[in-house]
Formats: sequence, C-alpha cells, structure tokens
Amino acid sequence: MSTRADNRSVDQLRNVTIETGWSAHAEGSAVVSFGNTKVLCTASFTEGVPRWLKGKNRGWVTAEYAMLPRATGERSSRESVRGKVSGRTQEISRLVGRALRAVVDTKALGENTIVIDCDVIQADGGTRTAAITGAWVALAQAIEWARGQRIIRSSAKPLTGSVAAVSVGIIDGTAMLDLPYEEDVRAETDMNVVTTGEGDFIEIQGTAEEQPFNRAELDALLDLAVAGTAQLTDIQQAALTAATE
Amino acid sequence: MSTRADNRSVDQLRNVTIETGWSAHAEGSAVVSFGNTKVLCTASFTEGVPRWLKGKNRGWVTAEYAMLPRATGERSSRESVRGKVSGRTQEISRLVGRALRAVVDTKALGENTIVIDCDVIQADGGTRTAAITGAWVALAQAIEWARGQRIIRSSAKPLTGSVAAVSVGIIDGTAMLDLPYEEDVRAETDMNVVTTGEGDFIEIQGTAEEQPFNRAELDALLDLAVAGTAQLTDIQQAALTAATE
Amino acid sequence: MSTRADNRSVDQLRNVTIETGWSAHAEGSAVVSFGNTKVLCTASFTEGVPRWLKGKNRGWVTAEYAMLPRATGERSSRESVRGKVSGRTQEISRLVGRALRAVVDTKALGENTIVIDCDVIQADGGTRTAAITGAWVALAQAIEWARGQRIIRSSAKPLTGSVAAVSVGIIDGTAMLDLPYEEDVRAETDMNVVTTGEGDFIEIQGTAEEQPFNRAELDALLDLAVAGTAQLTDIQQAALTAATE
Amino acid sequence: MSTRADNRSVDQLRNVTIETGWSAHAEGSAVVSFGNTKVLCTASFTEGVPRWLKGKNRGWVTAEYAMLPRATGERSSRESVRGKVSGRTQEISRLVGRALRAVVDTKALGENTIVIDCDVIQADGGTRTAAITGAWVALAQAIEWARGQRIIRSSAKPLTGSVAAVSVGIIDGTAMLDLPYEEDVRAETDMNVVTTGEGDFIEIQGTAEEQPFNRAELDALLDLAVAGTAQLTDIQQAALTAATE
Amino acid sequence: MSTRADNRSVDQLRNVTIETGWSAHAEGSAVVSFGNTKVLCTASFTEGVPRWLKGKNRGWVTAEYAMLPRATGERSSRESVRGKVSGRTQEISRLVGRALRAVVDTKALGENTIVIDCDVIQADGGTRTAAITGAWVALAQAIEWARGQRIIRSSAKPLTGSVAAVSVGIIDGTAMLDLPYEEDVRAETDMNVVTTGEGDFIEIQGTAEEQPFNRAELDALLDLAVAGTAQLTDIQQAALTAATE
Amino acid sequence: MSTRADNRSVDQLRNVTIETGWSAHAEGSAVVSFGNTKVLCTASFTEGVPRWLKGKNRGWVTAEYAMLPRATGERSSRESVRGKVSGRTQEISRLVGRALRAVVDTKALGENTIVIDCDVIQADGGTRTAAITGAWVALAQAIEWARGQRIIRSSAKPLTGSVAAVSVGIIDGTAMLDLPYEEDVRAETDMNVVTTGEGDFIEIQGTAEEQPFNRAELDALLDLAVAGTAQLTDIQQAALTAATE
Repeated sequence: MSTRADNRSVDQLRNVTIETGWSAHAEGSAVVSFGNTKVLCTASFTEGVPRWLKGKNRGWVTAEYAMLPRATGERSSRESVRGKVSGRTQEISRLVGRALRAVVDTKALGENTIVIDCDVIQADGGTRTAAITGAWVALAQAIEWARGQRIIRSSAKPLTGSVAAVSVGIIDGTAMLDLPYEEDVRAETDMNVVTTGEGDFIEIQGTAEEQPFNRAELDALLDLAVAGTAQLTDIQQAALTAATE
Repeated sequence: MSTRADNRSVDQLRNVTIETGWSAHAEGSAVVSFGNTKVLCTASFTEGVPRWLKGKNRGWVTAEYAMLPRATGERSSRESVRGKVSGRTQEISRLVGRALRAVVDTKALGENTIVIDCDVIQADGGTRTAAITGAWVALAQAIEWARGQRIIRSSAKPLTGSVAAVSVGIIDGTAMLDLPYEEDVRAETDMNVVTTGEGDFIEIQGTAEEQPFNRAELDALLDLAVAGTAQLTDIQQAALTAATE
Repeated sequence: MSTRADNRSVDQLRNVTIETGWSAHAEGSAVVSFGNTKVLCTASFTEGVPRWLKGKNRGWVTAEYAMLPRATGERSSRESVRGKVSGRTQEISRLVGRALRAVVDTKALGENTIVIDCDVIQADGGTRTAAITGAWVALAQAIEWARGQRIIRSSAKPLTGSVAAVSVGIIDGTAMLDLPYEEDVRAETDMNVVTTGEGDFIEIQGTAEEQPFNRAELDALLDLAVAGTAQLTDIQQAALTAATE
Repeated sequence: MSTRADNRSVDQLRNVTIETGWSAHAEGSAVVSFGNTKVLCTASFTEGVPRWLKGKNRGWVTAEYAMLPRATGERSSRESVRGKVSGRTQEISRLVGRALRAVVDTKALGENTIVIDCDVIQADGGTRTAAITGAWVALAQAIEWARGQRIIRSSAKPLTGSVAAVSVGIIDGTAMLDLPYEEDVRAETDMNVVTTGEGDFIEIQGTAEEQPFNRAELDALLDLAVAGTAQLTDIQQAALTAATE
Repeated sequence: MSTRADNRSVDQLRNVTIETGWSAHAEGSAVVSFGNTKVLCTASFTEGVPRWLKGKNRGWVTAEYAMLPRATGERSSRESVRGKVSGRTQEISRLVGRALRAVVDTKALGENTIVIDCDVIQADGGTRTAAITGAWVALAQAIEWARGQRIIRSSAKPLTGSVAAVSVGIIDGTAMLDLPYEEDVRAETDMNVVTTGEGDFIEIQGTAEEQPFNRAELDALLDLAVAGTAQLTDIQQAALTAATE
Repeated sequence: MSTRADNRSVDQLRNVTIETGWSAHAEGSAVVSFGNTKVLCTASFTEGVPRWLKGKNRGWVTAEYAMLPRATGERSSRESVRGKVSGRTQEISRLVGRALRAVVDTKALGENTIVIDCDVIQADGGTRTAAITGAWVALAQAIEWARGQRIIRSSAKPLTGSVAAVSVGIIDGTAMLDLPYEEDVRAETDMNVVTTGEGDFIEIQGTAEEQPFNRAELDALLDLAVAGTAQLTDIQQAALTAATE
C-alpha cells in the first residue's frame, strides 16, 4: 500500500524518459525527464584544453548546471542578471562534473575538452540526479561523435563506464525512491546517490533535514538507490541504442 | 527564382510554429519556432509592482531574453558564470519589453507584474523577432489566466492589441524576409521590424552592416516586413485559439 | 507657426557647434553642442589591435559613451561605483561604434585601433546623436594625425565617408526635428537616424513610445532627419576645415 | 602496522585541541586544531533575524568558512580581491551552517541570529571537519552567553545536541581516519561524516576520487568515522567544561 | 634661478583659474585649472540623507572623484566598464569628501545631502589638490543656493571655513610647489597638503617615493604648501565674488 | 599624570610583541600585537614577477591587508561575500606595500615576488601601523629564506633598511602615542607615521577629524611618533634575532 501522492510504490522510479539528438548544433544532446522534471543536456566537444592542463596530454570534462527562471513554481531571478551564480548552482555543477569525470579516462580523451550543459527547463525535484543521468548520455554521444570524426582514435576508450543518479529520502519514517518536489520538502533525510552502471558508488550525499538518521535507515536508503540507478542504467543504454538505429 | 539556401522565395517566412501550454508552472507559455530558431517564452504573473511603481495604480510588464550556451553552433560562455549580461542580451531584453508594453494598458492591468522570459533553446537567426512573437502569446495567456482567477476584472482590457516581429535584410542587393543565420551574416543591411496586428509600426531597427542603404531599399524592406508580420499575427491568433479549444 | 518651446520651426536644428582641438592629449577631439546638450569626444589612436583581430591585417574602431553624474537635471549614480554599465549606456556605445565603422575601411587602417570616448558633460536630449556627430570629427582628426605621423600611408583612405545623426519625433501628431529633453519625454514616437554625408542610411531606430506610427508618419520623420543630417554634415566639414587653418 | 606518514594507526585521530575564549570580542570563540590544521571559529550573536525570517518567531544560525591566503603551501589569491567566493568556499559554508542548524531549535532561539565565522589559519587537510567541530563549541558558548545576558530565557534549550565531523578515506585500499593533506590527495575515496554526539548521522558526503567504492568499503569508512566523532565529542565537552571553570 | 620646465620659481603656483556657473543643472559648479590640469566640479544638493543618518538631524557631504579615460597622455580603461573603481580613485574620493566635511557643520546643514562630483577632464599632475580646491567653490555655491531657496535657514552657517589644497615635492633635493605630471614622476618625496583658509592643516599626506625625507625637508615642504594654499584661498574667494556680481 | 584609560603616559607604546615563525607554510611570518590589536603577517616568496614587470630585471613586493569579520566589536560583513574590497581596505593595502617598497632594492631582489598578507585577527586601533611593523619582519625573514635557498645571491642586499609605523593623535588637546580604538574615535587629529629604522620619514598621513591642527601640534605629534618608531625598531630587531637563535 503506497502513501505516495502519485500512487507509486516506495521503490518505484517516476516515469523516466531520455530523448537524444535534441539539439541541431551540439555534439551530444538529450532531454531527460524524471516525471515532471525535465533537463536539457548538451555536450560541446572542442579540441584543446584549458590553459592549466596544456601539455599534459590529457583531456578535460566539466559541467554547468542552471535552471531557467520559470522552471519552478515561482519565478526565480536570473543568475546572469544578479551577476553571480548561487552556491546551490555551483555546488550542483561541481557535482555533475565530478560524477562524469569518475568514468572518463582523460588520457584516452587526448587534449580535448567536453563541456556538458544541463539546463533545467522544468523542475519537480531531483533535478541534479536527472541532470547527471542525462549528462552521461550526451557525453557518450559526444565521445562517439569525436571517434566518428577521427578526433579520437577508434581504439581509445575515454569512457570507462556509465553513471546514473537518483534521490532517495525518508518521509514519515519510510525510505522512498526518486522524490518529486512535494516529497522532497517533507523529507526528514534527503540523499543523492551516484553509481556506476555496475552499481558501485561514485558519490553519496546524505543530509538530515529534519532529524539525524541512523545506520539502519542509511542502509535502507542505499538499497533503494542502488536498485534505482540500475534501472536508470538500462534506460540510458536503451536511449543510446535507439539513437544509433 | 529564389536564390535562398532553403529555396524559399524572398517574401516567404520560414516554417513558423507556436506551441502553447508548454510549461507546467507558468501562467502563460509558448515555444515559438522560426525554422530552426526555437525560443521558449514563459509569462510569470505576480501581484504587486516594483518599488518605483508602487501606489501609482499601474502594472508593469518586462522581459528578459537569454540564450542557452549551446543554442549556437559554437558554445558561448554562460553569462551567469561570466558575472554579467552582455550588451547584446540587455539590448534585446529591453527591445522585447518595450514592444510588449506598446500594446499593454498598464492602468487596466492594475498593480500586477508580468515578467516574460524568452530563452533561446536553439538559434538560427531571428531570435529576437521570434522572441517578441512568442512572448506576446505567453503574455496574452497570462492576462487571460489572471482574468480567469479574477485578479483582473473581466471588463478590464490590459491588452490593447497584438505584436509580432520579423527580420528583413538586403543580400546581394535583394531585399529578403526572415533571415536565417546563414543569410544574416551575409546581409548588407539588417532590419528588425515590430508591428501591431493592424500593421502599424512599434519599432524599426535598421543597420547598414556592409554599406549604407537608400530610401528605395528601405521601402522595399518595410513592405516585406509588414507582409511578414501580418502572417505572424494570424499564426499567433491560431495558436491562442487552439489553446482554448 | 511653431509650437516648440524654444520657438524653433519643426524642421529646424538647435544651435549646433563643434569645437575641435579641445584636448591636449588626444589624437582627435571635439566638444559638440546640440543646444544645451554638450558631449566631449576624444579619439585615442594606438598601434595594434585587440587579440581577436591579430594577424588579420585590419584595424579596429570602437566607441564608449557615458554620462557624467550631474549632466542631467537630477544626479544619477556613477556607473563605476555601481560596478556595472547600464543597458542604455551599452546600447548607445554599440550604436556609436557601429555608426563609425560603417564609414571606415579597416583594411586601409592597418593594424591600428581607434577608441572614441563620448562623455556627455551636459544633457538636454539627443545625446546619442550629438555623440555620433562629434565622434566622427574626432575620428577624422585622429586618422589625419596618424597620416601625419606616417603610421598610416598617405595613400590609404581609411575613412570612406562621413557620418552624422539626428533625432526626430512625433509630438502632438506633428513630426519635429532634433528634440530637446522636454520634447523627447512628450514624443509619441522617437527616432534616431544616422546617415552618411551623401544622405544614405546607416542606422534607423524608431520606437513608438506612446502609440504605433504608420507609414506616412515614418516618411515624414525620415524626410526631416535626412534634411537635418545634411546640415550637420556641413557643420562637421566646417569644423574640420577650421581646425587645419 | 601503520603505513601512515605520521605513524598513526588507521583508526587514530590526529592530535586534536580546542582552545576556547580566544577572541576578546566574540560571544563565543574557539581555535580548533586537527594536527597542523588550525581554524579560528567565532560566534557573533545579534538580536533580530534576516528580513525573510521576520515575524516568524524563529532564530537563525548560519556560517561562513574562508581560508587565509597563505593557510596553504602555496599562496592562493584572496577571494575578496578576486571579487567572488569560490564554489568550494560556498559549498563548505553551506555545509557548516546546515550541520549546526541540525542541532538548533530555532524556535527556542527566539528572533536572534548567530553567525559562525570559520577562518582557516593553517591548512593541512580536513579543514571543513575541523571547522564544524570547532564551530559547534563557539555556538554553544554564544548560546550560553545569551542565556547569561537573559536574551534567551534560562528555560529555553536552543541547542538540542552536539555536532562533530571527521574525514575518512581509502588509501591504497585501506580505510583510514582523519586524513592530512598528504593522504587526502592520494585517497581513492574521500568522505566527510558529520554526526551528533549520540552517533547518528547529520551529513555524509562521500566521493570516489580515483575509483568507485563498494558497499563493504563504505561500511568500513562509516565505522571509522563514527568512532572518530565519538572521540571529538568528548574533546568538545571537555573544552566547554574547561572554559567555565 | 629656476630649474623648472615651465620656468616657474620653486615657490610659484601654476596658472590657476576657477570658472563658476559652468553647469546648467547643478546647484553649484566650477571648472578649476591648475595649469593643464582641469577638473569639473559639480555640487548636487538633495533634501534628505542616506539611510544610516536618518533622524539624527544632520546633513551629509560626500565626494566622488573620477578621471575621463583620455584625460591622460595614454587612454586608461573606463572604470565603469572594468566594473570596479580603482583603489586610487576611491582613495582620492575619500580624501576630497573628508577635506570638505572638515569645514561643514552638518547640524547647521539640516537633513540635506550634498554630493560633489570631481571629474578630471584633463590631467597634468595635482588632480586631487585641484579637485579639492574647486570642490569647495561648488560646495559653497550649493549652500548659497539652498539658502536662497530657503531650504536652509538664512541664519544657519553650514560652512565653517574654506579649504584649499596643493601638492609639494622634493626634486633633485629641492622642495617645489604645485608639481605638474612631469615633475611629479621625478619627485623623491611627494606631499599633498590641505589647509583651511586660515592656514591650519586639515590633511597632510606625504610619501617618500624614492628615498626617505628628514624633518628639515618636511618643514621646507610645509612652508611652501601653506604659502600656496593661502594664494588658492584668495583665488577661491575671488571666483565666488565674481559669480555673484 | 596620565589621563589615558590604560594608565599609559602620553608618550608610551602599548605592550608590543612580535612572534615570528608562526606559520608552517609561509617563507616569513609574524604575529604582531600592539595591545589588543593582533595582526598575522605572512610573506609568500615566489619566483617570477607580474606580467607588467617581466624582463626588467627587477622584483616586486606588494601587500594585502584585511580584517577577519569578527576582529571588531561588531561583526562586519565579509568583503569576499560582498564581492568587493572596501576603499579603506584598499587604501591600507596600498599603504603597507608602499612602505615596504621604500626599503627594498627591487634590482637586488631579482625577478622574484614577495606578497605580504596582513590579516587582522583582533582589532583595537592602530591595525595599519601594527601591520606595517609586523609585515617588515615577515619580509625580512622571507628575504633571508631566499638567500638560504640561494634564490637570491648571498651578496645581494634587497633590504636597504627597516620600517616601522605608529599612530599618534590629539585628544582633548594633548598629543598622545599609539592610540587604541577608544582613543582613536575621540581624537581631534589622527596621524599615522611610517619611518625607517634611522628615523627618517617614509609616510605621514595626518587628518583633522574634528578640528584643524596647527604647526605646533603637528610638531608635537611628529616628535612622539619618531620616538615611538625607534622603540618599535628595537622590538623588530629583537624578534628577528630571537628567530635565528
């Protein structure tokens, strides 16, 4: 018996879709939806690396996350107009970049740079986990593109695996998977989990919003998350396969 | 005989579509496409006005235009990260706001504010004219929404008309309508024309990029533009009608 | 019979003066007055070009417009102290630069840069048109200076023509030339027109402030403007001639 | 047999000291040392709350973390001079504030604000965990001060518990407690764990720097961390006791 | 026998002029010239005071100093465009404001604010001392204006005296008065001295640029400076008298 | 008979201490205390010079001054968070740098840079003079370090002397040495004096806060200051000697 607003069971993802080939210009692109959360992810491949990396025979992968002003229920002011990026935006941008780099062999990438832009077009909780999940698809496409262009040798394997992410939380004492905004604000504990396609951990960020959580609760959350990212991994692979058919 | 890359005649618009109801949150929204140029326009209605307008019994309508980093062929750096909005962005934001206010009776709007966000998701020339054209649709919806919510009295008519915009230019000596990026960069003269639904002018911005233009050329450009905005007006009305059916 | 505050006829310029040689340091300089509007224009010639133009065998001309805090009736805060340039300031700076570049052959200029600073010392409407008109004089002097210094070959003609600008507007239904502040705020339509010395258009920016304007009104405005810039062209030439006597 | 540079066993904290009463001005203050890492924590108590909290009958606790330019082996440029706070600095400031608020009953605090400044005077790894551990001591003192001043009623208990934090990591396959800089840069996985004095979790942030970690490794890290924060809790209590003797 | 480039004796001011009534808008204005150094000083009088002074029954006098980009031999970049005011600009703005406040009775001024803008139009050394000297004239006019407008009671004496400033320096071992740029860069010691009309000191800022100076040298510099400001005081009074004739 | 709060005589310094070797990382460091004013000074030595000095065969010495948020009685907001450095901070940073450069032979330093950071940890008046006094000690150590590392030849003498600074002021008509905050705010005149170890002047900054001062008062202040810096010079030398024992 579910107590969730949308009748999902506690271990059920929202409806997740990943639509590739969205952008006419980008070397890789995907619109990822986790329910009503929609994120446009584009991968921009450029030859060369930032100055601080030059001559080290390595590539660079980085990410920028942002939210359109009216992605949310109330319009938020535009960060470009305010003249600075919020702490939240920077924190998520750093998280997405770190998660992607965990599965990139920068030596195999050569002196090339891939920037992944994750722009939240509509927000309903879980934007950072959707962003990571979609960003990896755009990244994989951009690397495939570069191989097709022979910018990267066909034998090189810059991508050492896949990455997916999901949120979990404890609401009214129950651990639940993939929280929409409505649940997120009520959660006693909120956790974002990033794993590889094999189910190993890349990043765990758990925060007690209302009250501290114990080891048993942590274990329950991790079990849900790992099962969730396994499903996301399948959806990612299906999207990539569909894109090349 | 057309000399245009996409085989259009010189007085032909690109394929124009306006899809309303795009956003789950905004009081009005539309994705407008002029060929490969796509702009997401959302209207955010809030009660109250900016401090400098308080107590004057008038409303306020303003607009913000921006481009996603990879809307273009090459990724441009994010204005929020650079910490300031470019002159071009500000100039277009001001243009869109001015164009919309030309058909708003701010007294009839009451002390309410509508902010129109125009985010260019994909760019291929004419982004500012597409933005104005789509912004008006989102604005009209937001006003209708407020009337439905009884925030605005049903007898009030804050919208005194409609607004549409199109670019025209002279390429190889020939005046042409609705330039994609490829034509825009080659144009000797580039002009953006904003008109009301009745075909009167709200704004004319013409610039000789390569060589000065004479009065006859100006007249030819204006003829094309006015015919173009007449068609855009029809498409706007059809989109609004479809939305309410 | 004139209805204008200063008894001018509708097609009459204010008293216009251009005083050259104002600055002890600049390679070209002029103080231009359109009635009570006074703008100090200096041209700074430097060898070399911005990084993005290097090695292209072309020069660069750009402009910066600004207003002293108490140029206006009420003091406005200093943009340097606020830490950013307003949209209006950027828009006008871009306009002035674009207008000047329309008559510059950057190849003939060689890899040299000319920056024109237009600082409004006193404002009474039409500051941007006065700025363009004075800026061209300072520019012409700086190019002459460079030729005298043999930085530019005597056979090179970087200046392909002259540029002047004037405002026109519709007030109480009547088209009028060269609006002071008092008329500018009352205008239903406000237009800035930049032409070459031959009377061709370089830039037209017309905005319906109060109500849309039709084609006949537009034609009336353009007629006034072209006649006005013809007179300004004569005043520019006289100023340059006087400077060399 | 230890493989650690400083001969500690893998489950051993560095030498930890907390010296209170450091500042002549602040309502609470502590210099906390985790080995060579030294952080000055001051608590500033002010009556009133930020605007967005007014009239809600609640207090506010927030934190700012920063590093002196030469706290590190190489001087880093000053964030005030660069004109913006780095993503890392913001991220840690937010973490410290969140950790402290987890044990504050803001209603019991009344409409008062406590700002905790954590300035890293010398850095050798673990600055954020030292900052949290010291910040809590300064916070506790400031609340005690306010109670002494009768700004907070003596019956009110704004502090619902204590908070301490420690880093753990996997180096050469071995989980280790409290990493100095030298170990931190070599760690395959790096985790910061914040717990209450009772050993429940407030925040877990684990990142695979070099390679993903599995559930068994995660469990080993959490065991070390919980044992470490238990010791830090004792040191905090001793410091507070010593301060009142 | 003088060794100065312009044949002045060591204790001689440059040609100093103060032209009042320069601005059509400002409540007080003066263009002050110390040789080729020219500064436009405007005084803006507004009723009310900054927030932090409200309800204290006192007025406020402040100053902003700036230099036009091409006031100098080489164009300097515009501070508004760079997005921040240099340390030098702030330092001089603070100095000018402090010097003026030394002769203002803010209680007698009532809750009114006077902002003095000092914009250097042409620079040839001594811009800060010229600015102070001219600023005081603009200030005196603005106070007279307010008395005429009956904003200040006729019996109130907000101005308790006059202020003038001059630079002195040691060049090749000789103390000299009022240094132009050419001498300023060669000076071993550079000193700016601000005095009242009675010859008492308001501010002394002496800096050893090349080598430390001893007490005898200091005394020689102060003697020159005090004699110089006495002459400047006479010129200020003459300018004010001429303005009212 | 003294009227000073802390029973000092008018010509007596506060308790001054200079503790060297404070930092584990910096090439030179000192914590200097003038009574309750404490400043941490670190010297960072790096090879190479800023771009504008390259190839001139000279070194560079600069300083940055800052105050921790709660160094003062009331917390001040953090300059990094506000996004800009205050005028006061810049002014003092420039003063400290200038004072140090007065005793540095930049040719003898070679193409090396020394940055002195002066962070006020606790403030009670005279922070800038304490900063200068401590900064010189850190600078001397860094130069000695570079000589030890053979980055500077042992025969080179980059340091041509020593520098110390002290504040003096007139309170209730009496000239006094080394003012704490409490006296500083009451002072009619406030002066900071920087001298060499030989007692020659490097910088004099005197400001009439309440009423102008005359020549006799100036002389009395200078006498006190020179006697004070002589004592500070002895304390500096003792600190350096102790550090090498």
